[in-house]
Amino acid sequence: MGERYVAAIDVGGTKMLSGLISDDGRLLCSRRVPSNARRGADAVVADIAGTLRALIDAEGMQSGQIAAIGCSVPGPLDRRRGVVTFSPNLDWHEYPLRDALANYFSQPILIDDDANCAALGEGWRGAAADSANFLYVTVSTGVGAGVVIDNRVYHGVHDVAGEAGHMVIEPNGPTCSCGNTGCLEALCSGTSIAARARDALRHGEETQLRAMVGARPKSLSSEMVFAAAAQGDVVAREILATAGLYLGIGLANLATLFDPEMIVLGGGVLDGGDAMLGPVRTSFMRRALPSVRATPLRPALLGSHSALVGAGRLAMIGYAGD
Amino acid sequence: MGERYVAAIDVGGTKMLSGLISDDGRLLCSRRVPSNARRGADAVVADIAGTLRALIDAEGMQSGQIAAIGCSVPGPLDRRRGVVTFSPNLDWHEYPLRDALANYFSQPILIDDDANCAALGEGWRGAAADSANFLYVTVSTGVGAGVVIDNRVYHGVHDVAGEAGHMVIEPNGPTCSCGNTGCLEALCSGTSIAARARDALRHGEETQLRAMVGARPKSLSSEMVFAAAAQGDVVAREILATAGLYLGIGLANLATLFDPEMIVLGGGVLDGGDAMLGPVRTSFMRRALPSVRATPLRPALLGSHSALVGAGRLAMIGYAGD
Repeated sequence: MGERYVAAIDVGGTKMLSGLISDDGRLLCSRRVPSNARRGADAVVADIAGTLRALIDAEGMQSGQIAAIGCSVPGPLDRRRGVVTFSPNLDWHEYPLRDALANYFSQPILIDDDANCAALGEGWRGAAADSANFLYVTVSTGVGAGVVIDNRVYHGVHDVAGEAGHMVIEPNGPTCSCGNTGCLEALCSGTSIAARARDALRHGEETQLRAMVGARPKSLSSEMVFAAAAQGDVVAREILATAGLYLGIGLANLATLFDPEMIVLGGGVLDGGDAMLGPVRTSFMRRALPSVRATPLRPALLGSHSALVGAGRLAMIGYAGD
Repeated sequence: MGERYVAAIDVGGTKMLSGLISDDGRLLCSRRVPSNARRGADAVVADIAGTLRALIDAEGMQSGQIAAIGCSVPGPLDRRRGVVTFSPNLDWHEYPLRDALANYFSQPILIDDDANCAALGEGWRGAAADSANFLYVTVSTGVGAGVVIDNRVYHGVHDVAGEAGHMVIEPNGPTCSCGNTGCLEALCSGTSIAARARDALRHGEETQLRAMVGARPKSLSSEMVFAAAAQGDVVAREILATAGLYLGIGLANLATLFDPEMIVLGGGVLDGGDAMLGPVRTSFMRRALPSVRATPLRPALLGSHSALVGAGRLAMIGYAGD
């Protein structure tokens, strides 16, 4: 019969990762393919199924050795029904992903959102592998979080729990994608950093960002702001210091409310280095209650594989019931 | 042998409540005595022991019918050691309350803070009796909260979890008792309402609060602001509308982060009626994520007995292990 494994899928807006994972969390193999969202959800699922089968064959496994399948998806979902409620990047609306995958596989299929899966992944084989109670916070285009209590994701009543990006921390602050103003996401996400940099250009501030974007100010990205800051650009550094100050407040609030063993930080924005992380730590220390000030803020360790490994953990939990 | 009961104690800054409670949460009898903090912690505990014994005798019970003793205390504590870390009103510092009570009683003694006990009380016999996952938020002199997940208080790593009063929601806002600025407590507690009213007087605003305090502006209390607002005083109404707006933001953040079945609202400030509760509800609806906007905000039902009944629940949990 041989050993048993789980299959993991990380569906993203532009690419999908698939992988096979051993019961101790080792990623045996993985493959990345474009999402091809324009071809429709069913075609994306067919691609996933094909990729997984190819991986199973390449590893010389039998399908029966795969105990369960875990799947990470962006955006809100209804876990009970296995339905992706809305995913703007994939253009999915009320898509019954679990049922669609069940057309290809007979194994149990478990689904959760990307921040929750990434939290599970970091808790299994990453920065929080020694912790049963922690938060994972990701800062990239948006801001998301996963709350892990006793080794399980805490979901709340409507699968909304941990939506840290929409915690209001500056009531009269900038407008958020959700329509509210002053949400954490509107103050420190990659999108908000780029928006603040565009404002700086519009207001005629002196910065090398102007030369970097040339005639296309819309091309201004948070990566450019990080690059300019690394070269000492004062405007870029101020933008990142402000974003870091707010992220520090958001993390302090989370530490005060959840009192976790640690907070793991993931997402591209936090790869940008000290221009942002320095102010994050200073602001956190200033804002957190004294008794939680020592809560470690640890960088995620699994990089772009956090959610994939976590989808594997999800499958393992669903299979073993542990 | 007869039925079994638990004893409950609610130690407050100015008074102590003691009571006997049946295993289905009925408060059989209770007694209120002043805390007499000046006589020292050991004298307070001797008073508690005497009051409990008197209640047991008055009910014609045997001491052996009391299965366990639950105790609610203000301020931070170390539950594992049964030590009250710091209670300014009682002038207790690192006081070993559990050991002190154990000098008088042989039963198991369980201790938790007042907000957590009040949450347990409302979950046992009050507004959340039909809910296993809810938040209890109390607004009085300060702002506190208890987080109940699966019928248990969620404490976090340092017993800090749910310290909602120190969530920062207006980074440049007024200074809080904790030293931080813009904490929820500094924006909507009774203390902050009174402070804002004193500012209004100082700035010469036209309000009947001036006549109410006469020559003693320091006597200005949040109760006076509620009374003036009830009579249509515009300045008082604006102060309460601002406090309500911030409390609504705080509750929206809690709903977004914990996604509970409901939020139970207790504490004297929320007894003040619609001048504050109206703005709370409007602000909550505007600020909460759409999927949690329908989270019920329910008034607490047990009034000044929430924490006492919850201390009984704590004793029952400790006794039955359920």
